Amino acid sequence: MNSFATAELRSTHLVRAIAETPRNYRVLTGERPTGPLHLGHFFGSIVERLRLQNAGVESFLILADYQVITDRDSMPRVREYVHGAVLDYLAAGMDPEQTTIFTHSSVPALNQLLLPFLSLVTEAELHRNPTVKAELAASGRALSGLLLTYPVHQAADILFCKGNLVPIGKDNLPHVEMTRVIARRFNERYGKVFPEPDALLTATPEVPGLDGRKMSKSYGNAISLGMSPDETTQVIRRTTTDSERRITFDPRSRPGISALLSTAALCLGEAPESIADGLGDAGSGALKKLTSDAVNDFLAGHRERRADLSKDPALVREILKRGNERANHEANQTLDEVRMAMGTHY
Amino acid sequence: MNSFATAELRSTHLVRAIAETPRNYRVLTGERPTGPLHLGHFFGSIVERLRLQNAGVESFLILADYQVITDRDSMPRVREYVHGAVLDYLAAGMDPEQTTIFTHSSVPALNQLLLPFLSLVTEAELHRNPTVKAELAASGRALSGLLLTYPVHQAADILFCKGNLVPIGKDNLPHVEMTRVIARRFNERYGKVFPEPDALLTATPEVPGLDGRKMSKSYGNAISLGMSPDETTQVIRRTTTDSERRITFDPRSRPGISALLSTAALCLGEAPESIADGLGDAGSGALKKLTSDAVNDFLAGHRERRADLSKDPALVREILKRGNERANHEANQTLDEVRMAMGTHY
Repeated sequence: MNSFATAELRSTHLVRAIAETPRNYRVLTGERPTGPLHLGHFFGSIVERLRLQNAGVESFLILADYQVITDRDSMPRVREYVHGAVLDYLAAGMDPEQTTIFTHSSVPALNQLLLPFLSLVTEAELHRNPTVKAELAASGRALSGLLLTYPVHQAADILFCKGNLVPIGKDNLPHVEMTRVIARRFNERYGKVFPEPDALLTATPEVPGLDGRKMSKSYGNAISLGMSPDETTQVIRRTTTDSERRITFDPRSRPGISALLSTAALCLGEAPESIADGLGDAGSGALKKLTSDAVNDFLAGHRERRADLSKDPALVREILKRGNERANHEANQTLDEVRMAMGTHY
Repeated sequence: MNSFATAELRSTHLVRAIAETPRNYRVLTGERPTGPLHLGHFFGSIVERLRLQNAGVESFLILADYQVITDRDSMPRVREYVHGAVLDYLAAGMDPEQTTIFTHSSVPALNQLLLPFLSLVTEAELHRNPTVKAELAASGRALSGLLLTYPVHQAADILFCKGNLVPIGKDNLPHVEMTRVIARRFNERYGKVFPEPDALLTATPEVPGLDGRKMSKSYGNAISLGMSPDETTQVIRRTTTDSERRITFDPRSRPGISALLSTAALCLGEAPESIADGLGDAGSGALKKLTSDAVNDFLAGHRERRADLSKDPALVREILKRGNERANHEANQTLDEVRMAMGTHY
């Protein structure tokens, strides 16, 4: 049985165990604040986080600001994106009492874990990580020290709070594997400090960008959660479709039409094919109208809550302050255990 | 002019500038606590540190505990070696008011600098570092993530306190070069935060181990500063020499005899050749006696002070506590500036 099949089987068992004893688990999830959160984030990760939170699982949610510069030279507007993300989390229903929202660069003791952890892996192991390979290829740049060591940052992000559950798509399985290896090797060399976290494989729906590619701010094909209804309508109106009146779901040969159908389908909770059937020969204009309405209806409550929350300019700062305090408390405690284990308590 | 010649010329100017305005400089030096400090440390670095301290230059002295595991799997007795080193520093005359003695693993904000700094260098640049290459070859192990990123830790060690002067032998010039590159790139991308530190090339005498190889605890050829006179005499008596009665200084063909002559010469402040001439045909027994006496006389004051200082079991802890507090204060301040520059202040 390969590692993916093992993880899949293990995930099935985990789902039941989490439902039975949610308090046995601590989840780590996160985001790189490279732009405003969009529908891809919503369906791709926020929904799953809410599900776990509402099942009673404690979570840590990292805004991984340093990971912005793994594949670029600077981090413009990072503060704006971080604040926006916090508003989106709150508007979506994340409860800061149960989900600690914090920023990577604000927790020095977490980052210090990088040093002992780097001693536990070889350069060859770092190179074999598929995400490092993929991001390196996508970036078109020389491999930076930060990108090369990215799997080790992730291990520190998960282990600083002794997270034992990491919801991921199957592409990220190698990261959790590397984290397990680091935890195991640390425990073997210095004594047991860390759990070996489990991957919880999530079957998140694919959310295409409006041009059929992956939804990404840098492609200009994203519907961000904080957009106004008018902006949403406009960005949908601008998408490239074809002149064929008949609406059909065919992602390969009709990427624009199909991306709109997928987007509407997620927001309406229907299959894209049945939306296409309902539109028949109505043409892309009608599809765009339907999609705009579906998205705007779906996000109406979110946007209203977001607007309300943003009226208090101190709120986000306060949430981050509390989250960072809590993350620092956890990280300092873990680092103290690491010092005792390694003998570096003076 | 190559970079070594440039650094040499620059060092000559620096020596004068330091004498004129010592308060313009802040020095970073350090040690890996892999064993007890020995005569090699004394003549190789402590003498130079004392010279700078007594010239009025403020210093930070790092006990780089995490760097112990760049080329080995654990750090046995690290606490003992750290405590012993502090006793030796104090006995040698280091003044904790002017020289902040601290441990690497106790300063999280220093270690956090590793993350932004890693984004500023490529893997290829790390690989080109001669020390990484040499230590990799010497370790006979796969390259660990910690050894690969070693030049970046050194940059963080120097820049966290905005050190602008690093006394080094010429072998370590590439480390200071890498630190300058990192400081320059950070300042260019995010605004000026760091100085570009200067290397102060020191002509420290070669201190061979008793077998003629480099003095190192792991070779069993070291005279540690904290040994008793009897232990010193014994370790010298056990050295391998030859049966030729005539004592001559010839490091290549008579490594044992010559190492004893070098050791005695350093402690007596004489040339090894003239000691050899003075001994004539007296044989290796007489040389060993002369060397033991020279070392024990030279270290008598140091050992007496060391023994006195070690009577107060709280002293070393107190020195490290104060040093680490001061280092953390500096590191937190610098990290705050880094956050403002990068925009990661939330």
